Amino acid sequence: MAADVLRALPQDVADSALESMEAAAEVAPLMAYEDDGAVGLMTPEFIAIHETVTVSQAMSFIRTWAEEYGAANISQVFLVDNDGVVTGTASLSQLVLARPFHDVSLIMNRDVISVATGTDQKEVARIMKRHDIHRLPVVDDANRIVDMVVIDDIIDVFEHEATEDMFRMIGVDQGERALGPFWRSVRSRLPWLCVNLATAIAAGLVITLYQSTMIQAVALAAFLPVIAGQGGIAGTQTLTLIVRSIALGELATGNAKRLLLKEAGLGLIHGIVVGLLVAGIAFAWKGNPWLALVVGLAMTANMMVAGVSGVLVPLGLRALKIDPGLASAVAVTTATDVIGFLIYLGLATLMITLIVG
Amino acid sequence: MAADVLRALPQDVADSALESMEAAAEVAPLMAYEDDGAVGLMTPEFIAIHETVTVSQAMSFIRTWAEEYGAANISQVFLVDNDGVVTGTASLSQLVLARPFHDVSLIMNRDVISVATGTDQKEVARIMKRHDIHRLPVVDDANRIVDMVVIDDIIDVFEHEATEDMFRMIGVDQGERALGPFWRSVRSRLPWLCVNLATAIAAGLVITLYQSTMIQAVALAAFLPVIAGQGGIAGTQTLTLIVRSIALGELATGNAKRLLLKEAGLGLIHGIVVGLLVAGIAFAWKGNPWLALVVGLAMTANMMVAGVSGVLVPLGLRALKIDPGLASAVAVTTATDVIGFLIYLGLATLMITLIVG
Repeated sequence: MAADVLRALPQDVADSALESMEAAAEVAPLMAYEDDGAVGLMTPEFIAIHETVTVSQAMSFIRTWAEEYGAANISQVFLVDNDGVVTGTASLSQLVLARPFHDVSLIMNRDVISVATGTDQKEVARIMKRHDIHRLPVVDDANRIVDMVVIDDIIDVFEHEATEDMFRMIGVDQGERALGPFWRSVRSRLPWLCVNLATAIAAGLVITLYQSTMIQAVALAAFLPVIAGQGGIAGTQTLTLIVRSIALGELATGNAKRLLLKEAGLGLIHGIVVGLLVAGIAFAWKGNPWLALVVGLAMTANMMVAGVSGVLVPLGLRALKIDPGLASAVAVTTATDVIGFLIYLGLATLMITLIVG
Repeated sequence: MAADVLRALPQDVADSALESMEAAAEVAPLMAYEDDGAVGLMTPEFIAIHETVTVSQAMSFIRTWAEEYGAANISQVFLVDNDGVVTGTASLSQLVLARPFHDVSLIMNRDVISVATGTDQKEVARIMKRHDIHRLPVVDDANRIVDMVVIDDIIDVFEHEATEDMFRMIGVDQGERALGPFWRSVRSRLPWLCVNLATAIAAGLVITLYQSTMIQAVALAAFLPVIAGQGGIAGTQTLTLIVRSIALGELATGNAKRLLLKEAGLGLIHGIVVGLLVAGIAFAWKGNPWLALVVGLAMTANMMVAGVSGVLVPLGLRALKIDPGLASAVAVTTATDVIGFLIYLGLATLMITLIVG
């Protein structure tokens, strides 16, 4: 294709451009092996035209290009200077509607948005979305166009980015597929299951710590999964919302305090409602008002723990420059289990004479 | 705009087309209130040209249209018959490269993919992605073009669809935002917290069922959160993978059996590894080989329960024509809690004399 670009350029310009194009051609194959850079999205179909030609010369070049490549969907051309640096774009409709004897420089759009080779896919996707563009040139260090990202590829990026977010939260490798290889799945999930085991043991330690309380009032055991389960679900609700908001770029760093207050408040409201419900159930079931009080209070407190940890875990990970979603569900459920049990069994220990009395 | 379309048509055709366009114009505003249909994505910018004109007539109409609307990004025109029915498309590049005296019918693409008004956004997104198209006409019952979906809107659909999947799994309303209104969040999350409460109580009932076993060996209590926590995380791993695979259209209905076998097998492998680990920890900690055996066996079994329920819940919901993600995390963690405790405390009851002996 480089040859065709040059055919439309004056000879002296062509020589210089040829040099740049060759340099660019050297860069492209090298990059094709990278996985996460813009190079992985490249399609070789673009038209680059020298900025000094007229509209009529540009149109005739487009005809020549189309005869060679049969492109039925040419919508835009890139304009380059002597060094192969992109200086502007022109849409086919602009060229068709312009006067043939005008210079393309009169109609071209000079605000060219481009990305460097090796730019992260997600960043590329975000730029295309923000600027509402369907084609984004990829340029090398010298600002020479080397390839093109088209919007079709970007849709896949958005789909996979969201999938990755979900997988990472729960400790599933981003490349794992439902019907993929068996041992790939083992490698993907087993490490996080082992991490979770360590954290679950921590919750077990808390129970052991209060073993004498449990022996005195074994009815307490029935509410362990209730306190832990509610805290886990509530914490994961908050967490999911925040991980996704960060991914969609909806959450500025300065909002941390407001977010924390909101989620603590929600935890309080949810905790009061669920706490009253579970206290009622506990009283009706076990007939012990003090047990009901302890269960209700612990529930309310743990719902607040859930809200706060659902905010602090992802924001903390982000502050540490770690992916805010990374196995965050494991961290949040650990917090709600451990702190939830400490509050529940701690309160029960304080009120044990009332409970068993 | 209808007037401009008609200016390019012969008078007799124009009268008939005018009628259809008026009918179409009646349809559009009615639909603008729907939330999830294609109408919500409509942009009024498209060019419809009668199929019997020549390339030169079409180009001159495009120029007239562009003078009026200043469109710098015309890339495609739609060709319509006397009734306003879309019969084909032609890209601007095809028109530019064709001979001016040819009929557009000679160069037009007759395979027009379109969607009916009111088509679900996700279906629209999937069609555009599958066929790699940037603009999709929306047609009414009589197959008359009434509007256009452009790919830019579709990117948002993909982003939000993935977000919705994540939110639905955990019982968060799809419209909720991290910094959105407080009471909106309460309405979004509290209902599922109450559903989860009911299911957590079920797990508590299982513990009460085995209360006499617990009294005889209170050390059993320490492993309740370990059995439940591991099952919950493992089940959610499987679930997330499958919900996402269904959403991405990677999972045909016929694959259920293969998926179930794979996840049961994974549960077994993960269960053996995690079971051995936790049995070792239990033995080192409590110094009771029978307790260690019960904990290890229950862990292995519950990891299989996690794998199987992680498959059955979303596939079951899909078979019932319910969204496969709907609060599925709540359902899966309930299964792993309830069945996990039944297995763990059931085994402990069978072996209680050995454990306390």
